[in-house]
Amino acid sequence: MDNFNFYSPTEFVFGKDRENEAGTYVKKHGGTRVLIHYGSGSAVKSGLLDRVKKSLDDAGIYHAELGGVKPNPRDTLIYEGIELCRRENIDFILSVGGGSCIDSSKGIAAGALYDGDFWDFYSKKSFISKALPVGIILTIAAAGSEGSGSSVVTQEKTMLKRDAGSDLLRPRFSILNPELTCTLPAFQTACGAADIMAHVFERYFTNTEEVEMTDRLCEAVLLTMVKETPRIIADPNNYEARANIMWAGTVAHTGIVGVGRSTDWNSHNIEHELSGLYDCAHGAGLAVIMPCWMEYVMHHNVMRFAQVASRVWGCPMNFEKPEQTAIQGIKAFRRFLHDIGLPINFEQLGAKEEDIPQLVKNQGVGDGKTGGFVQLTSDDITEIYKLAVKASVQ
Amino acid sequence: MDNFNFYSPTEFVFGKDRENEAGTYVKKHGGTRVLIHYGSGSAVKSGLLDRVKKSLDDAGIYHAELGGVKPNPRDTLIYEGIELCRRENIDFILSVGGGSCIDSSKGIAAGALYDGDFWDFYSKKSFISKALPVGIILTIAAAGSEGSGSSVVTQEKTMLKRDAGSDLLRPRFSILNPELTCTLPAFQTACGAADIMAHVFERYFTNTEEVEMTDRLCEAVLLTMVKETPRIIADPNNYEARANIMWAGTVAHTGIVGVGRSTDWNSHNIEHELSGLYDCAHGAGLAVIMPCWMEYVMHHNVMRFAQVASRVWGCPMNFEKPEQTAIQGIKAFRRFLHDIGLPINFEQLGAKEEDIPQLVKNQGVGDGKTGGFVQLTSDDITEIYKLAVKASVQ
Repeated sequence: MDNFNFYSPTEFVFGKDRENEAGTYVKKHGGTRVLIHYGSGSAVKSGLLDRVKKSLDDAGIYHAELGGVKPNPRDTLIYEGIELCRRENIDFILSVGGGSCIDSSKGIAAGALYDGDFWDFYSKKSFISKALPVGIILTIAAAGSEGSGSSVVTQEKTMLKRDAGSDLLRPRFSILNPELTCTLPAFQTACGAADIMAHVFERYFTNTEEVEMTDRLCEAVLLTMVKETPRIIADPNNYEARANIMWAGTVAHTGIVGVGRSTDWNSHNIEHELSGLYDCAHGAGLAVIMPCWMEYVMHHNVMRFAQVASRVWGCPMNFEKPEQTAIQGIKAFRRFLHDIGLPINFEQLGAKEEDIPQLVKNQGVGDGKTGGFVQLTSDDITEIYKLAVKASVQ
Repeated sequence: MDNFNFYSPTEFVFGKDRENEAGTYVKKHGGTRVLIHYGSGSAVKSGLLDRVKKSLDDAGIYHAELGGVKPNPRDTLIYEGIELCRRENIDFILSVGGGSCIDSSKGIAAGALYDGDFWDFYSKKSFISKALPVGIILTIAAAGSEGSGSSVVTQEKTMLKRDAGSDLLRPRFSILNPELTCTLPAFQTACGAADIMAHVFERYFTNTEEVEMTDRLCEAVLLTMVKETPRIIADPNNYEARANIMWAGTVAHTGIVGVGRSTDWNSHNIEHELSGLYDCAHGAGLAVIMPCWMEYVMHHNVMRFAQVASRVWGCPMNFEKPEQTAIQGIKAFRRFLHDIGLPINFEQLGAKEEDIPQLVKNQGVGDGKTGGFVQLTSDDITEIYKLAVKASVQ
């Protein structure tokens, strides 16, 4: 196990009706002038935004608002938010939405206290040294941004998707009401599940030895997803399954399942160019890429793939040919993604084989390498995209 | 799943040599005048205390010190610590030791800012509304107090053991260096393992339904303990196994494995009177009591006991007679405790059958009931102690 620091100071406020306590928690965490940041009309139409505003009003807290966050959130709205924060002397950002909204809020939070261009944090030209406090009211279990210190944003003019991170971006509180996720369409729900599982797999595939505790925590999240996801696809209003998935999504990305070990993140890297170019759902892109990445790299550590096949997918261990167990596990994962309604190849995703050179170029790996478990070249990434063209559940 | 709040703002600083960063973390978390609180001579003899003091000196931080914490920490030393804090204008307590030392530090932290008798918090006459910040350098994986907001203290004149708790008692930081635990004798190591597993079981046995995510987290800790404990009993210097157990011990008691569900705590309640009366190790008492408690209450929810038997102990599920699987799991647990060198009955612990009425009386249950999974009367507790007189691995 490697040395590590783990610091997750977010107060998680979980359960039915908890969004009505927004005012209490903003006040507890020091907010007096709040920017409510949200996405599309659903938070408005459902009455959620009104309930949140009422809670702030009851607590006597001033609020401004900025809506319009899109999936794969854009830098353009963040510039607008930063401007608004300065004009209105905002001291707390309350994000009402899913991962895109939260990531946009984090961009605003960091940018509002920075003299330069906030994109510097995402292009790695600068590091975040201060940020406005952020609170969350989560509406979709997926990105895990409600418990993490990271943010992913797309630059509108280039459609490049880049990430920034700092413990300073960890939310002060996150209100998690599973009921708010019951109205999500099945496809979005499934995309969220793929994202949650990806956050675990990116950490599970490690070159650090002797990390049983975090392996088991990873498997705990995966086993929960395998049990609960089909239940909410079959019955979107199943509160208990929604609750387990919502908490699993948070645990998957606070960092606790990945401490003390090297991690990978190539599936995310490779997927980001898909959702960057096609504006498809991140989880859908992951469903296409992850099993292909696994097939491409599994010989780097067959026993690790056999372990997850056995412990999570219940595949019988083939002691003579462990690679058979490993392959069986990857197939089970792809079948699972397919069965919950996700695309598993380029055609189903709406991606095109002829774009592969462009996708690889956008990665920006050039003559270098990327990733923590297996270091991949541009040629390797090309091969993984090619596997994704033809992937099937057969 | 029940509504819940989960707030674990402790910064965990894990790995080799991390105690040399004590000064940095005290400073980061606002300490300027520190009370170093520690236990017996081992922290002195090993040179640990000198390294910690050097780190504080290097950071220019004033420090006073108070040693002498005993296992099952006494109120008497806490009164002394409170006095010292006031006299020296202490603003930060640095606890160098195990659970007893940390619990004593928390008592001092709460008492130093309280006008009344600190024991009021433990006798439930008053609630903690403020406390000095506490930082930890952990020397034994067991109590989980390094990640929790709770404290257990024994009143010297009555030998009654009582607990107090508040998020205000959660450490600001906890430095966890597994190397520091390598010198622990096998018996203390095993006692720690029993305590860690007990913290999970107290949460695992719940009446809340549909808590798959936390069930799986509980099992993650238990599976890790089952794998790693025998390795450190066989080879005390196995760093990797020590590291996995140290992190498991912290995860077991931050609260994360028990959120959203009712919990039990009767094994702890029943054990506390044993270590209170005989001054035996808490983990040793738990090893005697836990399996007996399980045998006594298993019919309340046989399937939950069958689940842990199957998922943690690898017992084949008996679908015709699930209670057989449940019993097999309890036997496997007792065998495990025995094999790592712990007592499993009164004689091995040094407890006496004739003291049972006194033990039950000390519980203070009287005509009432106690516990969250199964509510137990004084008669029930008597029966559990009687099971503990005769328990064997046969």
